[in-house]
Amino acid sequence: MEGIKLAARDGSRPRKTVVEAGGARIGGTFTLLAVLEGAGDEAAALAAARTVKDAGADLLRWPAGEAGGFGRVRALADRAGLPAIIEVTDTKEVVPAAAAADVLMVGAANMQNFSLLKELGRSAGKPVLLVRGWHATLKEWLNSAEYVLFEGNPAVILCDAGIRSFESGARVVLDLSAIPAVKDISHLPIVLDVGRAGGPEEIEKMGLAAVAAGVDGLMLEVGLASASSRDSAPAAGLGPEAFAGLARKFAAMSRLMEGLGLDHD
Amino acid sequence: MEGIKLAARDGSRPRKTVVEAGGARIGGTFTLLAVLEGAGDEAAALAAARTVKDAGADLLRWPAGEAGGFGRVRALADRAGLPAIIEVTDTKEVVPAAAAADVLMVGAANMQNFSLLKELGRSAGKPVLLVRGWHATLKEWLNSAEYVLFEGNPAVILCDAGIRSFESGARVVLDLSAIPAVKDISHLPIVLDVGRAGGPEEIEKMGLAAVAAGVDGLMLEVGLASASSRDSAPAAGLGPEAFAGLARKFAAMSRLMEGLGLDHD
Amino acid sequence: MEGIKLAARDGSRPRKTVVEAGGARIGGTFTLLAVLEGAGDEAAALAAARTVKDAGADLLRWPAGEAGGFGRVRALADRAGLPAIIEVTDTKEVVPAAAAADVLMVGAANMQNFSLLKELGRSAGKPVLLVRGWHATLKEWLNSAEYVLFEGNPAVILCDAGIRSFESGARVVLDLSAIPAVKDISHLPIVLDVGRAGGPEEIEKMGLAAVAAGVDGLMLEVGLASASSRDSAPAAGLGPEAFAGLARKFAAMSRLMEGLGLDHD
Amino acid sequence: MEGIKLAARDGSRPRKTVVEAGGARIGGTFTLLAVLEGAGDEAAALAAARTVKDAGADLLRWPAGEAGGFGRVRALADRAGLPAIIEVTDTKEVVPAAAAADVLMVGAANMQNFSLLKELGRSAGKPVLLVRGWHATLKEWLNSAEYVLFEGNPAVILCDAGIRSFESGARVVLDLSAIPAVKDISHLPIVLDVGRAGGPEEIEKMGLAAVAAGVDGLMLEVGLASASSRDSAPAAGLGPEAFAGLARKFAAMSRLMEGLGLDHD
Repeated sequence: MEGIKLAARDGSRPRKTVVEAGGARIGGTFTLLAVLEGAGDEAAALAAARTVKDAGADLLRWPAGEAGGFGRVRALADRAGLPAIIEVTDTKEVVPAAAAADVLMVGAANMQNFSLLKELGRSAGKPVLLVRGWHATLKEWLNSAEYVLFEGNPAVILCDAGIRSFESGARVVLDLSAIPAVKDISHLPIVLDVGRAGGPEEIEKMGLAAVAAGVDGLMLEVGLASASSRDSAPAAGLGPEAFAGLARKFAAMSRLMEGLGLDHD
Repeated sequence: MEGIKLAARDGSRPRKTVVEAGGARIGGTFTLLAVLEGAGDEAAALAAARTVKDAGADLLRWPAGEAGGFGRVRALADRAGLPAIIEVTDTKEVVPAAAAADVLMVGAANMQNFSLLKELGRSAGKPVLLVRGWHATLKEWLNSAEYVLFEGNPAVILCDAGIRSFESGARVVLDLSAIPAVKDISHLPIVLDVGRAGGPEEIEKMGLAAVAAGVDGLMLEVGLASASSRDSAPAAGLGPEAFAGLARKFAAMSRLMEGLGLDHD
Repeated sequence: MEGIKLAARDGSRPRKTVVEAGGARIGGTFTLLAVLEGAGDEAAALAAARTVKDAGADLLRWPAGEAGGFGRVRALADRAGLPAIIEVTDTKEVVPAAAAADVLMVGAANMQNFSLLKELGRSAGKPVLLVRGWHATLKEWLNSAEYVLFEGNPAVILCDAGIRSFESGARVVLDLSAIPAVKDISHLPIVLDVGRAGGPEEIEKMGLAAVAAGVDGLMLEVGLASASSRDSAPAAGLGPEAFAGLARKFAAMSRLMEGLGLDHD
Repeated sequence: MEGIKLAARDGSRPRKTVVEAGGARIGGTFTLLAVLEGAGDEAAALAAARTVKDAGADLLRWPAGEAGGFGRVRALADRAGLPAIIEVTDTKEVVPAAAAADVLMVGAANMQNFSLLKELGRSAGKPVLLVRGWHATLKEWLNSAEYVLFEGNPAVILCDAGIRSFESGARVVLDLSAIPAVKDISHLPIVLDVGRAGGPEEIEKMGLAAVAAGVDGLMLEVGLASASSRDSAPAAGLGPEAFAGLARKFAAMSRLMEGLGLDHD
């Protein structure tokens, strides 16, 4: 693909990049990224984090705005024993976020914030999870990865998250075709934010489909139980049990794919 | 979904329509639809048809333009022992095609040819395979099915075949999200023309993904060997062996999904 | 443009095709196509048709479904003294519609109904107004024109009518860029269905813009007054006075463009 | 439009915002924004800047990367006697760019860089020219404006620049429909980067069309003559004479629209 060099597969580097982050590995195996969603206090967040870890989650994201700062995300991740993902939206945040996180995330709206991408290439020293813009072609997405790589950071994880179609008022189109297409042209690992699929039924079907298509990991949201209501149902997102049920199915599917001789490359 | 009545799920009819066509069943199980592709004489077509049947194909399509008429398609299907799919593009073709075919197909370009859809509802007396237009929303697609159903033909099979996106110059987006979305709102079976995925690698990954997402069947092209070259490689499409290899993997995946307790409803 | 031959500009034919239809000319000048909209009896239709003729309309469309048959459209057009446009949706309609109409129209949903296009090329003997599909690229649109031309009918008028974008749930995008783009590659005249622009304000602005961009004509709807209510306000669309006001502005803009030395080629 | 408050028209503020920037006015009249394009030394840039000023340009942009810094852009603008537009891509640039510029520009790729938008609202003290993302709905675009307005900067100019469609591999769709649509819901001025239209012919037609649709201004590129070649043809973009010719036509069209009683509101 024209203009894509460092992100492209070629004979001079390994066929598949495996990114290591705080003990977790992304690429070459199936990885589960859990996202805490909704307002909740630290006790609720810790309970949810421990549940998702037991359910097999490999990395944890707790949006810093809801957590109350990067330090509190770090503290939670340490207590839960999971590597932390923190989103950055501005060059000024790169250094402090990198001090607290194991993976730095760039959201869809910033996929073409080239100043930020270059700063992440130069100063992060941590892997970058690069979410595809809703409108971005594969080439544009890989081109954004190229900015990070070019500045010296070799650890980029691509995160597909649905594209906008003529129908997107009603429904996100999860572009699973992108999974084999990216693997054909790039050595970078690719995960999918499957929470965008819709309700629990759609999340399950599309998560299984993405694993069958060879995705390297899934990102999935879990809702925090509202502390004030003293009730186990989360204010938003899947509850911890639904999360655990899906996590088991995704892991089972991943093992089945290996049994079929269909690996992650 | 507003305006979708006969195609919609409701309590007054079975949760899932199973369409029967010439001994094959579409819906509630995994069905493989084979398409003969490229120019070739009857001997080549018969050889390919027998190969795909042995590989597990349940229905056969041989484009009438290449076959040399509806009658020759029928003759081939009879000799191969497979039900025949014939595409119609005009109201005048409905009666003669219905006399020769087990399933009548409407291509993407005619998805909103309402005269044709109404004629298929009134006069076909055979199931209709309705391919989604490249640009069609789910609602428009189901609305086209509604025309056939309203005129009295209850046997409609939906066939997803990729949508056009901002990237479609380069690449078709196979909208697998549509599979659970359609199943959530409609009782009609849904199959996918997986040959649109790209090369053999993409076809394999997306076929497996579609089965994981719960698709009721896959349509897959097989190239006819060129008779003149006396060589087993087809002029276009997958060769018979590649077809058979994929058919085995799709069937294996389908059984695995059943083993996971994930059925076709 | 690859594959576009008869519709393409080249040195061997005039730079600009002018289509003649029942005394009206489309191409090389500004043409106004009026469409009667909404239910109404023949008296209401005749009153509206005479009003739009006085306002400068050059051709008249009254949907046959509302008129009650092709013959009644013909009768109205004769009484109003305007050439008639009739839409066809099926090959069987081509001959009877051609007997009644001065121009045959193909709607957006049938732009790729190739059986119909070929029949219009062979049997119509009347100009064809080919509406662009909501999803169609310029190349696909011109390719559809090519089918009509190839079968022997040289009189094709292109009608742009808005395209579907990521925003089309909310708003049609009138692709005015297509006007100079089509003129650059084709000799066929191009008109715009400006009624798709939205309310009266948007219709006015986009109609003026299209004339400035060099469009050969505008199609504009006028609502029939409800006879039962005995009131001059139409049940739908612009009223006759609003129609006349816009017609005057569009004609004035067309003359101004000529004054600027900006012609229709 | 839901969520759009400060950018929306309502009874409590003027119907139309007029932005003043270094003596130029945007909104309520026709404004021409010139962009110097291609590599060139200061002498070439000054010559081009003086030419475009003579041709009627009201503001000047010289990309800082090509100019060699914000200070040199400022110096050129002063010598040419035109207000300067400078693009910012990072929060760190806002203060130094604001010291040198009369208008700060946000490019399409940064339309949803919310950190940057907020900083521009708080610290710029200069008008902001907000380019629409290629994929952005009107609502998202106005929502980005809302960020700047909410932080206290009332001077936002919207700049339309084409959207991505299913065809955009080949061709940008200049969404002129957005001009009346934005004017219907917002009081902010809207200009169009007409250089995206294509070649000189398309730029002329679409520029005239945009003026007819009521646009408040046009942005147009002019190529710098290559100093080394000692030749008057620019290395890229329109030459100064072609620029001047178009500028005259756009101004003439603007006066004609006023003559038709069609103002800029």
